[in-house]
Amino acid sequence: MQSTALEKQLGFLREIDRLKTVVRQSPLLNRSRKENSAEHSWHLAMYALILNEYADGPVNTDRVIRMLLLHDVVEIDAGDFPIHGGSAGEGQAEQEARAAARLFGLLPPPQASEFLSLWQEFERAETEDAKFAKALDRFQPLLINVFTGGGTWTESGVSLEQVHARYGPAIQQGAPRLWAVCEQWVARHFAGQGPGMPEQGG
Amino acid sequence: MQSTALEKQLGFLREIDRLKTVVRQSPLLNRSRKENSAEHSWHLAMYALILNEYADGPVNTDRVIRMLLLHDVVEIDAGDFPIHGGSAGEGQAEQEARAAARLFGLLPPPQASEFLSLWQEFERAETEDAKFAKALDRFQPLLINVFTGGGTWTESGVSLEQVHARYGPAIQQGAPRLWAVCEQWVARHFAGQGPGMPEQGG
Repeated sequence: MQSTALEKQLGFLREIDRLKTVVRQSPLLNRSRKENSAEHSWHLAMYALILNEYADGPVNTDRVIRMLLLHDVVEIDAGDFPIHGGSAGEGQAEQEARAAARLFGLLPPPQASEFLSLWQEFERAETEDAKFAKALDRFQPLLINVFTGGGTWTESGVSLEQVHARYGPAIQQGAPRLWAVCEQWVARHFAGQGPGMPEQGG
Repeated sequence: MQSTALEKQLGFLREIDRLKTVVRQSPLLNRSRKENSAEHSWHLAMYALILNEYADGPVNTDRVIRMLLLHDVVEIDAGDFPIHGGSAGEGQAEQEARAAARLFGLLPPPQASEFLSLWQEFERAETEDAKFAKALDRFQPLLINVFTGGGTWTESGVSLEQVHARYGPAIQQGAPRLWAVCEQWVARHFAGQGPGMPEQGG
């Protein structure tokens, strides 16, 4: 029996409800629990909406938002690979590619290939839109760690140098003015001080 | 001391983290817990992205997505008013308007007024974009109830007539082809049958 386009679309929308059960390492800002990947995706879309002026290159904010809305859907099959979780390497890329094929493949053909392409563009991080999206995907958890007094850095015993190495390149490439703020925050954090305020922002 | 634009923007993005702690009446599809308003907003944005062809009028999908991303932010101050929670009436509108003024007012002026306008447009439900956004905001919890064997309808003792009255107008106005599917689901549900499949979709 053939499914109609609408049946496939509704099947996809039901399937991705599971993203709400994928738990990330990062806490909520009030530290009451860990963040899940669905609400993280919402928050990142809001970051893109609010902070688009800090993108390094010319970006299409609506494409960035679409990219961020679906960037973590693969975690439904592949799980979340934490930034401080050790070497994920080849295994991660393969698992996520398989997940993308299965999940976006639930949609009718034009949407399936459209969203698969958008996800692949995000992963490759070569276009201005993807570079900005990737920068925000690093910036948001860094902000959480700074404003929760350490978050996953404290949990995983991460050093200042590791923070620079793991967050710096992506944020610097896609949103250098946000990285300038991060550098101040991180320096203060590892000096045992609070986040303070970014010195020059607007 | 004056805050820079970036400080205000980051303050807003931190403040709206609290939307992750606003719990709605609707469950997740796996019934493990109630949905929160942040992940609900993500899911609705995905509904808009996937289902835009079912809008009644010509819509700008990206505007609809932006509207849905921020439509519930007011709940941080005003709380969630459940659809089956009895008469909210004037109190709700006033509380939400105050919340919108405070929360969007955290942003620098151009964004503050831009997002306040977009939220007001959603609330008024007069434009094609807002009508479609409102339709999805009713369609998603209806789908959840049908696919969880009753959800909030069972909890609150809601009848078929009440479902038609509370969900029908908004969905019919913004997405009549989706309402046609809902009518079949709802009829089957109240006849003690499962959701089945929509008869004609694509």
